Amino acid sequence: MITRFAGLTPTRSRAVVHDGLVFTVAVAPDPVTPSLYEQTVKALARIDESLALCGTDKSRILSAIVYITDMKQKGEMNRAWDEWVDPKNPPMRACIGVDLEAPHIVEIVVTAAK
Amino acid sequence: MITRFAGLTPTRSRAVVHDGLVFTVAVAPDPVTPSLYEQTVKALARIDESLALCGTDKSRILSAIVYITDMKQKGEMNRAWDEWVDPKNPPMRACIGVDLEAPHIVEIVVTAAK
Amino acid sequence: MITRFAGLTPTRSRAVVHDGLVFTVAVAPDPVTPSLYEQTVKALARIDESLALCGTDKSRILSAIVYITDMKQKGEMNRAWDEWVDPKNPPMRACIGVDLEAPHIVEIVVTAAK
Repeated sequence: MITRFAGLTPTRSRAVVHDGLVFTVAVAPDPVTPSLYEQTVKALARIDESLALCGTDKSRILSAIVYITDMKQKGEMNRAWDEWVDPKNPPMRACIGVDLEAPHIVEIVVTAAK
Repeated sequence: MITRFAGLTPTRSRAVVHDGLVFTVAVAPDPVTPSLYEQTVKALARIDESLALCGTDKSRILSAIVYITDMKQKGEMNRAWDEWVDPKNPPMRACIGVDLEAPHIVEIVVTAAK
Repeated sequence: MITRFAGLTPTRSRAVVHDGLVFTVAVAPDPVTPSLYEQTVKALARIDESLALCGTDKSRILSAIVYITDMKQKGEMNRAWDEWVDPKNPPMRACIGVDLEAPHIVEIVVTAAK
């Protein structure tokens, strides 16, 4: 069985659950600030919300891909990550510099166990 | 058991199936047009083919990462996506601006349930 | 059950195992050479190490996303990949041009079966 949780647009889900795995993605919700630290804090809070919808939480994240638009600011993202992460249960993580749709400067894709 | 479907090059598979999960990737096949809309239509058709090879279909896609080379054209990719997606079963999706090997301007990575 | 293998930083794991799936990421370990071929060889060796820690190996890789910083050098990455890959068990693979934190010019994210 596949369970889907609606996102802002009808052609995408904010989270999908299948066979003990959760797939979710988040950007900072409106209003979007220009600070990478703040956008990361808010995107991670959104991940928390989505994981809760799916019946799980950050202690069960398996992998995270963090896309940011300016690698020179990676420290700001790391600061938000390190404050947020469950230190007893750190995910595999990659941080990749890419383009995103403005005003977003961070987007996070997470795979978690339910 | 892991089942692999051969791609154009012997060192990569176009799709891999394991324990109810399908991993597949597609670009637009030759001839490659310069239109992002058309490349996306063709890459998504290729995803359909690969999912069929694996015994599943787009209604069972869990997550999709859409890589495009020009975020300013994201609307063209979205138009193709919205026409193609199963609106009753929308995947989690992220769209990321990156470099790809020319002439490709879109590449799509999908995880689906079998 | 989720099993995590510690990485260089306490807030990330180098590999995570759950329900028959392994999630791992690697860059070339220090000292980091400026050659894409050599960094790829070393990152892939690191993937081998992580898979071994998790009780699996490259013959059971399902998907790989290879991030490189210069798509014009993709051939150098391919050369290392083709020498390394198990030709009887090729993974799904995507190669994406992105920014990475210097001096890294390649980072590889792998999902494997245990």
